[in-house]
Amino acid sequence: MNVRPVAIVGGVTTKFGVRPLTWAELAQEVGAALFRAVPALRTEDVDALFVGAAEPERFAFQSHVAPLAAEQMGLRPTRILQRTELACASGQSAIRSAYAAIAAGLSDVAVAVGVEKMNLPSMAEANTSMACVMDRPWDGPHGATAPPFFAMVAQRHMREYGTTEEQLAAVSEKNHRFANSNPTAQFHEKTFPREKLRRLPVVAPPLRLGDCSSMTDGAAAVVLVAEERVRQYTDTPAWIRGSGQYSHFHNLANSGSLTDWIGLRLAAREAFGRAGIGPADVDFAEVHDCFTISEIVEYEMFGWAPVGQGGRFAEDGQGDLGGALVVNPRGGLLGCGHPLGATGIAQAVEVVQQFQHRVPPARAVPDPEWALVHNLSGSANVHSIMIYQRGGAA
Amino acid sequence: MNVRPVAIVGGVTTKFGVRPLTWAELAQEVGAALFRAVPALRTEDVDALFVGAAEPERFAFQSHVAPLAAEQMGLRPTRILQRTELACASGQSAIRSAYAAIAAGLSDVAVAVGVEKMNLPSMAEANTSMACVMDRPWDGPHGATAPPFFAMVAQRHMREYGTTEEQLAAVSEKNHRFANSNPTAQFHEKTFPREKLRRLPVVAPPLRLGDCSSMTDGAAAVVLVAEERVRQYTDTPAWIRGSGQYSHFHNLANSGSLTDWIGLRLAAREAFGRAGIGPADVDFAEVHDCFTISEIVEYEMFGWAPVGQGGRFAEDGQGDLGGALVVNPRGGLLGCGHPLGATGIAQAVEVVQQFQHRVPPARAVPDPEWALVHNLSGSANVHSIMIYQRGGAA
Repeated sequence: MNVRPVAIVGGVTTKFGVRPLTWAELAQEVGAALFRAVPALRTEDVDALFVGAAEPERFAFQSHVAPLAAEQMGLRPTRILQRTELACASGQSAIRSAYAAIAAGLSDVAVAVGVEKMNLPSMAEANTSMACVMDRPWDGPHGATAPPFFAMVAQRHMREYGTTEEQLAAVSEKNHRFANSNPTAQFHEKTFPREKLRRLPVVAPPLRLGDCSSMTDGAAAVVLVAEERVRQYTDTPAWIRGSGQYSHFHNLANSGSLTDWIGLRLAAREAFGRAGIGPADVDFAEVHDCFTISEIVEYEMFGWAPVGQGGRFAEDGQGDLGGALVVNPRGGLLGCGHPLGATGIAQAVEVVQQFQHRVPPARAVPDPEWALVHNLSGSANVHSIMIYQRGGAA
Repeated sequence: MNVRPVAIVGGVTTKFGVRPLTWAELAQEVGAALFRAVPALRTEDVDALFVGAAEPERFAFQSHVAPLAAEQMGLRPTRILQRTELACASGQSAIRSAYAAIAAGLSDVAVAVGVEKMNLPSMAEANTSMACVMDRPWDGPHGATAPPFFAMVAQRHMREYGTTEEQLAAVSEKNHRFANSNPTAQFHEKTFPREKLRRLPVVAPPLRLGDCSSMTDGAAAVVLVAEERVRQYTDTPAWIRGSGQYSHFHNLANSGSLTDWIGLRLAAREAFGRAGIGPADVDFAEVHDCFTISEIVEYEMFGWAPVGQGGRFAEDGQGDLGGALVVNPRGGLLGCGHPLGATGIAQAVEVVQQFQHRVPPARAVPDPEWALVHNLSGSANVHSIMIYQRGGAA
């Protein structure tokens, strides 16, 4: 069946970091910024709003955030508004929902916005809330939150394939370097050499502070439109050409191998199949580097590196400018921070800005045509992928 | 533009009530029941899962519930799974997402499941969690939770239009009577005469216990399929012919009139327009009677009763069997209970069962062709509507 094409025509990201703002104030800030960033967009054009947010119920003691975001963004009345939650992939879920709504003829011009407020007066409460992403009654008592889970992945990857701490640090060094050229990133450490990264405190062995993304406040928004409306907003759209999303377990006991992420392989196969391209066609990718080891496993699952060679791929700079493809030029979750519901949308904003040649030379991908965005959620049990193609000038 | 038609081909509801089960166990129960209720459905047919849940983060201290539900329902690996949240309308949001995914060509056979576990050892905690549905920092300090808000609506409706407590009780009597013929309903009070209802304790004046829906544990699931797959599962599908969803405020200060629900009027106009029918064509409706006054206002906003005459419409039995149309034959939220994420899906199950003539005579709508399902969320600030048409036998 044929459905009408959909493109992202613009977007914006707030400053990520420890922001002295509430959830609602972050939504207001990104709403105002969106209409400045896409000057042709009027509030009355927007006929659908999708809100990605992972845990406002716990971090902000506020549920039913979709109409709250609508009001704060100046969209009133608002059509088809919905909040999507898929933990760390909540933002991409909002984009996918907006895509489906437009393709299905329910919307012509949709906004997908992601907002997360994670830094609280009591960070103990924030960390406790993070614990409910995994299977709480079964995995929670064993202390399974994100850092120990990904530490197990790293330990296993080291044992199976000889991956080294130096290779983990190579991912962190690259992404923090890219973040230096991204003014919205949480971290702007001017030099983050691998030797320094390897002296940082251990969070969960072998993962050190520089191997972990952070608790971050932030918001991001993009505008998705049906084909016939694209030229109204931009000459350089990011066409959505493929997507895929799979889960293969929830309880850790059902995960199978820690280093073979089946859900990611299935999601990638679907996304590449729909887009009609293969891994080697991707010019740059925004992948979910919640931890350095994640990016290394992802190199392998996407087929950019042979299985077991993700560490070597990192060490050799194959995911850097001048390598096989550029991975996380935005600065990644490691450099930008990880406001759960905003991350997937901020990654899409980077795609638009790369396609429109609006990023500084330090992270500019040369002549990009194909971009891939990947988010995982939970214990890498769910994987969500979007593939974008640059549209030419009119 | 033309998109391929989508129908609901079957569904099931667990027993609603105070259930000694966890969130995950409710998901497991409804999954097993779904495959019994739709015998032709195999797990490998299901290529998308959408999970409606309002507040598992607070009620069950569990987020990221989409992969949890998938695992508990025996769907592994699972494609395009997503949790949708729109407070009291979270279930219908899951159906709408599944509809859009199928219409957009992302799925052929999707399951929409709604699960909510609301009864906790500490009901004080449960009630506190309900407070975060409304605008917490602005409306929360004034005590704005659902009962006081809808009490204000009732007081205002009484003042403007002379609506009476007897008319409120007429809605409750009808819906509780219908619930007696629904084995999955939470309440089976055999006689609930209006005089008895008017002696029940006051919750928020003028609303008494019988005017309020309850805190309920329960789950429901439906199967949505693309046109070409319908006959594989049923001879009598419920075709999705129209939908509409609007919000017109979040903060109560922006609500405007308490008795003129603009969002509902806009959503209804869109849903009727897409379906190509008018209010008088609806044979029966499952509307959101979280409180008796809600159903009365809804009679007016949908155009079944003139504005101000909703109370009279109830008193005259116009929403009962033999009236203008049958409203809430399932037993409504008042009689069935209101497990937030499950309600919208249980309403759709009733539509399928009415169309398939599988309900007892006490609540059977004669020869139904058109059905409407409505959910509101929060302070009646968001309204979601689906319109279904009965498909004929093959």
